[in-house]
Amino acid sequence: MKYQVDLNCDMGESFGAYKMGNDEEILDFVTSANIACGFHAGDPSTMRKTVKLALEKGVGIGAHPGFQDLTGFGRRNMFVSPQEAYELVVYQIGALYGFVKSEGGVMQHVKPHGALFNMAATDAALSEAIAEAVYAVNPELVLFGLSGSEIVKAGEKIGLRTANEVFSDRTYQADGTLTSRKEANALITDTDAAIGQVVRMVKEGMVTSADGKEVTIQADTVCIHGDGVHALDFARRISQTLKTSEIDIRKISEFK
Amino acid sequence: MKYQVDLNCDMGESFGAYKMGNDEEILDFVTSANIACGFHAGDPSTMRKTVKLALEKGVGIGAHPGFQDLTGFGRRNMFVSPQEAYELVVYQIGALYGFVKSEGGVMQHVKPHGALFNMAATDAALSEAIAEAVYAVNPELVLFGLSGSEIVKAGEKIGLRTANEVFSDRTYQADGTLTSRKEANALITDTDAAIGQVVRMVKEGMVTSADGKEVTIQADTVCIHGDGVHALDFARRISQTLKTSEIDIRKISEFK
Amino acid sequence: MKYQVDLNCDMGESFGAYKMGNDEEILDFVTSANIACGFHAGDPSTMRKTVKLALEKGVGIGAHPGFQDLTGFGRRNMFVSPQEAYELVVYQIGALYGFVKSEGGVMQHVKPHGALFNMAATDAALSEAIAEAVYAVNPELVLFGLSGSEIVKAGEKIGLRTANEVFSDRTYQADGTLTSRKEANALITDTDAAIGQVVRMVKEGMVTSADGKEVTIQADTVCIHGDGVHALDFARRISQTLKTSEIDIRKISEFK
Amino acid sequence: MKYQVDLNCDMGESFGAYKMGNDEEILDFVTSANIACGFHAGDPSTMRKTVKLALEKGVGIGAHPGFQDLTGFGRRNMFVSPQEAYELVVYQIGALYGFVKSEGGVMQHVKPHGALFNMAATDAALSEAIAEAVYAVNPELVLFGLSGSEIVKAGEKIGLRTANEVFSDRTYQADGTLTSRKEANALITDTDAAIGQVVRMVKEGMVTSADGKEVTIQADTVCIHGDGVHALDFARRISQTLKTSEIDIRKISEFK
Repeated sequence: MKYQVDLNCDMGESFGAYKMGNDEEILDFVTSANIACGFHAGDPSTMRKTVKLALEKGVGIGAHPGFQDLTGFGRRNMFVSPQEAYELVVYQIGALYGFVKSEGGVMQHVKPHGALFNMAATDAALSEAIAEAVYAVNPELVLFGLSGSEIVKAGEKIGLRTANEVFSDRTYQADGTLTSRKEANALITDTDAAIGQVVRMVKEGMVTSADGKEVTIQADTVCIHGDGVHALDFARRISQTLKTSEIDIRKISEFK
Repeated sequence: MKYQVDLNCDMGESFGAYKMGNDEEILDFVTSANIACGFHAGDPSTMRKTVKLALEKGVGIGAHPGFQDLTGFGRRNMFVSPQEAYELVVYQIGALYGFVKSEGGVMQHVKPHGALFNMAATDAALSEAIAEAVYAVNPELVLFGLSGSEIVKAGEKIGLRTANEVFSDRTYQADGTLTSRKEANALITDTDAAIGQVVRMVKEGMVTSADGKEVTIQADTVCIHGDGVHALDFARRISQTLKTSEIDIRKISEFK
Repeated sequence: MKYQVDLNCDMGESFGAYKMGNDEEILDFVTSANIACGFHAGDPSTMRKTVKLALEKGVGIGAHPGFQDLTGFGRRNMFVSPQEAYELVVYQIGALYGFVKSEGGVMQHVKPHGALFNMAATDAALSEAIAEAVYAVNPELVLFGLSGSEIVKAGEKIGLRTANEVFSDRTYQADGTLTSRKEANALITDTDAAIGQVVRMVKEGMVTSADGKEVTIQADTVCIHGDGVHALDFARRISQTLKTSEIDIRKISEFK
Repeated sequence: MKYQVDLNCDMGESFGAYKMGNDEEILDFVTSANIACGFHAGDPSTMRKTVKLALEKGVGIGAHPGFQDLTGFGRRNMFVSPQEAYELVVYQIGALYGFVKSEGGVMQHVKPHGALFNMAATDAALSEAIAEAVYAVNPELVLFGLSGSEIVKAGEKIGLRTANEVFSDRTYQADGTLTSRKEANALITDTDAAIGQVVRMVKEGMVTSADGKEVTIQADTVCIHGDGVHALDFARRISQTLKTSEIDIRKISEFK
């Protein structure tokens, strides 16, 4: 086909007796798995199982490092220094590496989680620290980040391959950033519209902003949600629509 | 020289604002560093600094995985399943690997910590799970464990190189096990006697048990304590005495 | 009615983004709520909500202290000293007290959780430490524990009111202890048989052991499970059957 | 004497095997102890010992709630909602209450710790949530906060008694706030100058700002550091100087 895109999903977010997500089912529809590393979610047992599942299904494995805030699921901004960010990313990539190696696989990528992802998108120093951490552990890893944001720039600057991530269910501003969730029009609730936005981003590299402007955007990978009642349905539908729109769904490390 | 032995010390046990040990100084006297991996002690920042120091001083780096019990410093027995032990060891080796890799080094060994070390010494199933974890992450790693105990047997069985660890300041029983700390004669408080015990273990492969029996024992590596007011003094003295006793102090990976 | 019994259920076991149990619904059927205090499960937000719900429904509130082992949900034995057990129980009762007080209620009881509950049942020193902790914080609190076990004895010895807890879905041994879960016949899977066992324990103070012996047992409170697909159904059925069996369901602090 | 002031110190900050501070010695010089509650520092055992010591020495006991960030010692800003702040304060006051009650004492005050203290100083919504939490658990508690800041205002608004806290070793700005630690002139390193600043704040209610302005300030309590090599010396010297300056050192709950 003419076009290609990666579909990524956060997973391995269960913790001890607590279950979250539909990892096994959702892995049939995505090409890259962002696996929690024990700081904001996940535990050694969940990590092992999730790595094993992803390898069985041929899905690209990525570390999904987050803040050490299990109570807040890594979604609360924490003011760590760039040095601290570097260290928590190295630690978490390493921890996941243990399972990838022991299960006989290879790690594909790193995607910061939650508040770390959001803060890095606009904070150059934080992004550079994260990119340095990824590069220092393994320069072959692909760094996932919000399309066009500081983290992608930091990754490119240091020499990492990067993946510009786009969202199907979020609206964009004229400057290419996501509309804040505090705004009424932040979310796209209509499934067809959400999928349509992705198809256009992949094929045309364009998105219409919330206030009607035409904005250029690069879409290497699309974030698919793994939790919630409609997660599987949505994954199935976007998967089908992309395929019938001349778009190959392919993990980032196998892009042509 | 005719004989050789490795000196190992637990380190990287500081945590956040809490300082523990004299890592920088003690590294001048030991050849293998067992670095805490964040479960019973240590944090990402401490791990990075300790790995860096060990590399600068040419000391062999080892993961020191323990129970996830920071309050109890990993010294309280926890009844984890062999599967859970496998997973917590893989996780912690991986986490340390992140720092070893990012600092440009190579990991030498793994030594279970505290209650995990003690439980494994007599529990074959637990020891096998630990040995499998080490082997699965990297079969080149050396597994450290109580001399002659289940963990050493499990390591040999799976094909790992092992290091039989002896203690200078603990007395032994006729069956080669350590005298329980609950017993009055568990500790050797006289420094000369402690060092003398080590010299004999290395050169003759023998130790006199607490009740006066002659016991065979293999001494590949000696555990040196890094904390406490006398730690440095003791490290200096044992180091000097070994050298003047025809015993080379050499990291386990460079044994001849 | 002629007889009375308390129905208790573990709740408040959600943690951050992780949901567990059907607390709101199950509270309609039970008279005492054992609320997790943040060590093995529960977090400040969940504790506040659960206390509020229990007060609204007139259910007796109890602290449910457990080991500090979120990964293991407090179900793994940990070898804490009696002093440590005392301290972790005081801490957790206090933490829950904060919410009970701030919501305008009064705490009724304390029930140790999971591995702490099981270990205390047969460990007199551990039980005495727990009973002392409860008494020291508030001598009016009722101590819940396995019927006839060490914890009940320790509570009585120190002067606490105690509640002998029985299980509907577990079989008993001739000595009044629960059949180990490792045994094939540990569980009673037939709902009618489970409820029938409770009715007989309450009315006759007798239970038939797994090997057919008649055993005396005191049943002040019955443990109802709050999690799982059948939890609500079972709660409804046992509640109905007890009422039609001349047994009043009444919280322990309102026993006549 | 004509004047009075309370001297407070953070303590109970040891954790497990990690020791911090000179609590026992410093308690001889201060009148109010802010005891860590297990989130940013402290553990159940440390809390019990510290409460016991404070009671023996007649020092006022306060809860010192902080963010759940042991790695960062509660010094890193975390963006919790006011509701979350309310809940973590209730939890921690409660936890400390357990030990105060079981040791036979009464709690005197609450002082937010570290980043929570700093954020609350300028955030009215956060301060109101904290004040509500304190009031809801016990309206008799005194709320400590940066002199003249939002937390003091929030405490007064809800009807709590408050204590305006001043610092001896920090310079002030013309608007009464502390000079940021990032500024070169943030700290007063000369001991006489530091103590002199306190004496003037207590007796005249005035402080000279870093840029030479005269600023009004209320000094109910002075923060004394308990850690570091000079902590005890400083405590002794400020204590002596205050007494010879007609200033009684008295715990806040015994102010006349």
